[in-house]
Amino acid sequence: MKDEASIIARLCRAIPNRSGRAAAGGVAIGIGDDAAVLRPRRGREWALSTDALVEGAHFLARVHPPEVVGFKALARAASDLAAMGAEPRYFLLTLSLPAERAGAWLERFARGMARAARRFGMELIGGDVSRHDSVVAALTVLGEIRPGRALTRSGARPGDALYVSGRLGAAQAGLELLLRGGTRAPRRARNSQHYSLERHLYPVPRLALGAWLVACGIASAAMDLSDGLSTDLARLCVASHAGAVVHAASLPLAAADGGESASAGRRAAALARALHGGEDYELLFTVRPRRVAQVPAHFRGVPLTRIGEIVRGRGAMLLKANGRRVPLPPQGWDHFARP
Amino acid sequence: MKDEASIIARLCRAIPNRSGRAAAGGVAIGIGDDAAVLRPRRGREWALSTDALVEGAHFLARVHPPEVVGFKALARAASDLAAMGAEPRYFLLTLSLPAERAGAWLERFARGMARAARRFGMELIGGDVSRHDSVVAALTVLGEIRPGRALTRSGARPGDALYVSGRLGAAQAGLELLLRGGTRAPRRARNSQHYSLERHLYPVPRLALGAWLVACGIASAAMDLSDGLSTDLARLCVASHAGAVVHAASLPLAAADGGESASAGRRAAALARALHGGEDYELLFTVRPRRVAQVPAHFRGVPLTRIGEIVRGRGAMLLKANGRRVPLPPQGWDHFARP
Repeated sequence: MKDEASIIARLCRAIPNRSGRAAAGGVAIGIGDDAAVLRPRRGREWALSTDALVEGAHFLARVHPPEVVGFKALARAASDLAAMGAEPRYFLLTLSLPAERAGAWLERFARGMARAARRFGMELIGGDVSRHDSVVAALTVLGEIRPGRALTRSGARPGDALYVSGRLGAAQAGLELLLRGGTRAPRRARNSQHYSLERHLYPVPRLALGAWLVACGIASAAMDLSDGLSTDLARLCVASHAGAVVHAASLPLAAADGGESASAGRRAAALARALHGGEDYELLFTVRPRRVAQVPAHFRGVPLTRIGEIVRGRGAMLLKANGRRVPLPPQGWDHFARP
Repeated sequence: MKDEASIIARLCRAIPNRSGRAAAGGVAIGIGDDAAVLRPRRGREWALSTDALVEGAHFLARVHPPEVVGFKALARAASDLAAMGAEPRYFLLTLSLPAERAGAWLERFARGMARAARRFGMELIGGDVSRHDSVVAALTVLGEIRPGRALTRSGARPGDALYVSGRLGAAQAGLELLLRGGTRAPRRARNSQHYSLERHLYPVPRLALGAWLVACGIASAAMDLSDGLSTDLARLCVASHAGAVVHAASLPLAAADGGESASAGRRAAALARALHGGEDYELLFTVRPRRVAQVPAHFRGVPLTRIGEIVRGRGAMLLKANGRRVPLPPQGWDHFARP
């Protein structure tokens, strides 16, 4: 029989969670009461963020397997904790779904979410399920951080160097590959395709990098890239009351189809994806000039690339390969600006 | 122009919130960064709960004005804090909505939510908006509570007296009135109708009562009534490993149409609503026998009624007016058990 209790039980069997009264640790009361109760640790603040994964807007049932929906819902939210440099701990899930998805689909969704929770070291402490004609998974995530150490968007100053982790445009390339290739992920993909598909389907937020940026105090500002570099950089500029210049030639592009021998058109498409493609979940961060020498080329295998600098003024500019500077207005993902 | 930034700005103009770095108080970083950062107060734990208000399941656009949707979304979630006896402080909102609701509808929704936030003393600290073909408002609420003092569902023991606040079935009666009367709330309603409509449209969670139950340590268990007494009492029984007997004659019914002179059919309908009607957001709580004398008949104008007792065994029974005991299985609201 499908009922709320059996759906909740199914989620709790799959996803690591704290239920009832836990004598030790930070959870005083876990899943199963009207609310969870957390016991703050001395010398820690809480970072909290909320994010929804919505059918039709963020995923398509015919393209994205339920494991991907479950994994990505938590990964997206956890990426906000990475951006603050917080250590992920707990999450709450409100799940709206059609009755016909409450069986096998839900089982696979829970498996994907459980995989993400184990990988990020997170536990479910609360939730709510309801019936709806399509799936909306809204997550609230909690992480711990030392007082006053959170990375913010507002600390960048003119002269700071601008960095990104990973390769940009990968998630967008993965989505295009999936939509072009039919309804399912291809069984075999070439290396660059494999990377793009992986970043689109199972993005792993840069949690260790965020924690390292906090620990060594090297970043003056940071945020995660969820809606595309042009859109997210504009937000960082507004928060920091500054402008930015991005060097097109420096951008770490997710490889264009055809690699070195790619046509000009394909290279232009790869650049556009890097500038405006959403869902990369890489970190964008700034570093004071005197500390630039301390930024390694890679952090745990993930490239860290200097892509430009913060300047006086407002908004972002793009320094093109031909030496011309052009405005770089936000052209990334906006749910409501699209037709 | 409608875009995410303008929608967020509109919500923030209306709803009390903390943005940016707040030097004082419990919010280190408010709305506008990747995550909010909270500074725990010494000697306090955090109660957290999440709850969604879903179009089609919890409200109908043709019946419920946007102010009601905004107010109720927060009130429902805050009721879980009342049930724990926690003091409401902050909330996060993920709102999915159609583009055509991003104008006047959103403005009125925000006004309703702002009214609830001010009334309950809560501030918005984070959120996320996305586009969807209908409205889903998922809220996470945070409250403060002294360590070890939270009211739980699991503390009831055989012999404890069972109490409820307010009058039961009011919200269900209000909904029926609304559906029967056409598409809008009537301009004039008789007193009992007015009470029922108010409890359906603008339920005020029993926050002061929850705080008082914590302060005087009088309740052995507590929860809020959201899905109907028969369903919620069954949950309390499971959590407390006990049974319960409810005295039908003692139930504080929301007045049946016609009052004292109501027909037997109408009185039976009022009893059914009290037992199984959802959304009352009253508190159900238990009290050890030696403390029963300390429970007042009213708390700040809200009646507190002894409706039965906790007994050995499992599940709930109903002691009918004719003296017969019958099982009282869960027959309240379940999103997935309904056809």
